[in-house]
Amino acid sequence: MANAVLKVEGMTCGHCVSAVEKAVGQTGAVGKVDLASKKVSVEYDEGKVTIEAVKAAIEDQGYDVV
Amino acid sequence: MANAVLKVEGMTCGHCVSAVEKAVGQTGAVGKVDLASKKVSVEYDEGKVTIEAVKAAIEDQGYDVV
Repeated sequence: MANAVLKVEGMTCGHCVSAVEKAVGQTGAVGKVDLASKKVSVEYDEGKVTIEAVKAAIEDQGYDVV
Repeated sequence: MANAVLKVEGMTCGHCVSAVEKAVGQTGAVGKVDLASKKVSVEYDEGKVTIEAVKAAIEDQGYDVV
């Protein structure tokens, strides 16, 4: 398993946290959002999903991975 | 039909708009949120729903009607 921490702009509330965590989850990775720091901790299996796919899933929800 | 405009604190994003409009709708009233001004325009049938019930539905979603 690999880990990454992404900085994500545009998350403002609990709904955003849920949307991002759900989107990450749908890639097969596990995401945990810290709203205050705007960071998303991602744990993923490099053999099954790329961090690029996780970033794309977050951006598809309307947030910017910076 | 009656109309009211409520000032609601805590709405930050499109998810919040959806949550508030859905909650208002579930009372039987129709709500339209303007996020920039933090105002919720409510149209309702006074014979079927009270504005107090609409306010309660919004507050149940975690927002403050001020």
